[in-house]
Amino acid sequence: MAANKKNAFYAQSGGVTAAINSSACGLIEAARKHGIKVYAGRNGIIGALTEDLIDTSKEPIKNIAKLRHTPGGAFGSCRYKLKSLEQNRVEYERLIEVFAAHNIGYFFYNGGGDSHDTIHKISQVSETMGYPLVCIGIPKTIDNDLPFTDTCPGFGSVAKYIATSIREVGCDLISMAAPSSTVKSSTKIFVLETMGRNAGWIAAAAGLATEEAGDPPHIILFPEIPFDEEKFLIKVENCVNNHGCCAVVVSEGLQNIDGQFLSDVGCIDAFGHVQLGGVAPIIAKLIKHKLGYKYHWAVSDYLQRSARHIASKIDLKQAYALGEAALKYALQGKNNIMTIIMRQSDKPYRWTIGWVDLTDVANVEKKMPRDFITADGFHITNKCRKYLIPLIQGEDPPPFKNGLPQFVKLKNVPVRKKLKEGFTFRK
Amino acid sequence: MAANKKNAFYAQSGGVTAAINSSACGLIEAARKHGIKVYAGRNGIIGALTEDLIDTSKEPIKNIAKLRHTPGGAFGSCRYKLKSLEQNRVEYERLIEVFAAHNIGYFFYNGGGDSHDTIHKISQVSETMGYPLVCIGIPKTIDNDLPFTDTCPGFGSVAKYIATSIREVGCDLISMAAPSSTVKSSTKIFVLETMGRNAGWIAAAAGLATEEAGDPPHIILFPEIPFDEEKFLIKVENCVNNHGCCAVVVSEGLQNIDGQFLSDVGCIDAFGHVQLGGVAPIIAKLIKHKLGYKYHWAVSDYLQRSARHIASKIDLKQAYALGEAALKYALQGKNNIMTIIMRQSDKPYRWTIGWVDLTDVANVEKKMPRDFITADGFHITNKCRKYLIPLIQGEDPPPFKNGLPQFVKLKNVPVRKKLKEGFTFRK
Repeated sequence: MAANKKNAFYAQSGGVTAAINSSACGLIEAARKHGIKVYAGRNGIIGALTEDLIDTSKEPIKNIAKLRHTPGGAFGSCRYKLKSLEQNRVEYERLIEVFAAHNIGYFFYNGGGDSHDTIHKISQVSETMGYPLVCIGIPKTIDNDLPFTDTCPGFGSVAKYIATSIREVGCDLISMAAPSSTVKSSTKIFVLETMGRNAGWIAAAAGLATEEAGDPPHIILFPEIPFDEEKFLIKVENCVNNHGCCAVVVSEGLQNIDGQFLSDVGCIDAFGHVQLGGVAPIIAKLIKHKLGYKYHWAVSDYLQRSARHIASKIDLKQAYALGEAALKYALQGKNNIMTIIMRQSDKPYRWTIGWVDLTDVANVEKKMPRDFITADGFHITNKCRKYLIPLIQGEDPPPFKNGLPQFVKLKNVPVRKKLKEGFTFRK
Repeated sequence: MAANKKNAFYAQSGGVTAAINSSACGLIEAARKHGIKVYAGRNGIIGALTEDLIDTSKEPIKNIAKLRHTPGGAFGSCRYKLKSLEQNRVEYERLIEVFAAHNIGYFFYNGGGDSHDTIHKISQVSETMGYPLVCIGIPKTIDNDLPFTDTCPGFGSVAKYIATSIREVGCDLISMAAPSSTVKSSTKIFVLETMGRNAGWIAAAAGLATEEAGDPPHIILFPEIPFDEEKFLIKVENCVNNHGCCAVVVSEGLQNIDGQFLSDVGCIDAFGHVQLGGVAPIIAKLIKHKLGYKYHWAVSDYLQRSARHIASKIDLKQAYALGEAALKYALQGKNNIMTIIMRQSDKPYRWTIGWVDLTDVANVEKKMPRDFITADGFHITNKCRKYLIPLIQGEDPPPFKNGLPQFVKLKNVPVRKKLKEGFTFRK
């Protein structure tokens, strides 16, 4: 390795996915080919602030390869948003200090909207401070709400999990829904809650399970469509009358007409977002209370985003390609960009990797277009289906041993600290 | 087909599974080989009472074969328990009337403990009434609580789903659990609720995900072990201190020291059982309230029992073999029996099919032996592991098309009614 070769810093940020390690794998494998050392932040950007770096070059190459089939974030992630330069300049100075101490010339940040805002700020600060740093974002979010990229790694796998799950559970519900005239006790209603705070992409993916009219899910409740209780209950009743049962998919971010979330666990994360959960039982109990139907409900929560066993092959491939491309663009000297997927055609699905300036990305949220949702607000349109179908194609299960998927546990060898001072977080 | 050949009646009962259709497939394929027509009850035993029979001989053989990879109950199930002969003799007389009208000489009932009680009663009644009827039970219950059989079809697949899910979600949780000293907002706790009303088998299966000390799940809460809040909270706190996080699996049937369920949706099913759900958020909120840790929780509900995409290959094979053997035993003239799995050895797992007298089965519930649970009551022992491991072996995914599993929708052609009178259910 040339003595003047810069090292790279890589960190995972925010909620992890079944595909984020595939991006890490793409980046690290590409970096090794170019003789660039990748230091990963333990627990994301916190690892940079605390000088807690992981030397990925100490990790056997076969372990790095296994990242492709391991869910979660192998180096640890965190929900920690840097404050603005005015509010907490010391954090930015500390980052640059750590980077300088470890000869880091490339900063790769693998995350969602908030993370790309952070990269953009660091890029600006490094320039202001005169420290040369190539800053590149690698998209990741199951919410699929980043602009410009055709899709966000992690989303396709959640989409496949949710559509598969509702199709399976639909078979179950139909079996259990004996006519009310004979058995009062039969379950008529199933409510599945999906993630998706502000954008209904994950809930929408459930709609792919409906191939023929009447197939579950019968109703999808999107965060983009204010909840109209009366209209919803009429729809549920009609559905039970016509199909004997009603499978409902509801996004955790469902809001009423006043923009209030239907459910709120009363916990606010570091980004100031309310952490949601539990809208499925609320909807189920509403139906029971107003229409009297017996219900079941499920909340998948983390299960949906970590379900590597049913991940989308195309999603994993794209996640890898975006990580790999990040290294390529870095070597080309591109700065302050995010790698993206560019769709060339729907059928067959053709895509290439490109990039977009981070200035344009930061804090832009891509919600479901209105024409992806049916006129009545309760299902997806063919236009939406055309967009979503390519993203769930292909299966790529992890290796199984003794009946269970095998995931790698990295050694995560720490880099020797070089700075005398630790870092104290402001409370 | 000989003119004097008797027809068979088959019905699915109670909560369906990812494997019950595999038993149906085994029975129907075997019956076809012997020229015996199988009439299935639409919505289980209700179909017999209402003379709503499905002629499975009208179903293309390729559709019957597809039952092997289709979750739910293809002919419909129900939760309807016949009353005692003293309470409602008319139901039993009606059943025999319908069977006689359709030349039914074999009664196959595919269900759990309550269903085997029903078969036993019908067998007694048919004898009393002088109607010759061969009555055979085919076990099915994700709860794995039937006696004599090594395991119950449906359980192995739920076990595989739950163990896989908690292993995956464990990777996620570990990624998110940055040290509290740096980030207050990081999630430390994940609670997964499993089914299992009185027996902790499903919760126990989660324990298979723990291969090395410290692997998730860290704590399992069984219905067999009364919940000791203080001891539990100490265990959680130690776990977070030692491993940075704590993954908890809780059975829906968790009870306090007084035998009260921690959660109760306030709904009682036809068998008089309280329908549970929602203990995961209760446990999660308890931890938050007492220890202050941020949490996530999931309730899989029907998802776990319908997850055909991650079903256990051995489970599907056993389900098929039990259905197939039911026909064989019927032709041998065995009556009032349930087909069972008999384990020959653990490693390699060897098993054969046998049978047991229904008189011994009815209303006996097999709970987790105490020596399958660790001394502290919070995990499984090696003895339990040895029992469970064979049951989740092998993957046998359904065919996928367009990124999603393909399930068969049977035509379910009705048998022409022969009786003049309908049947009115008592309210």
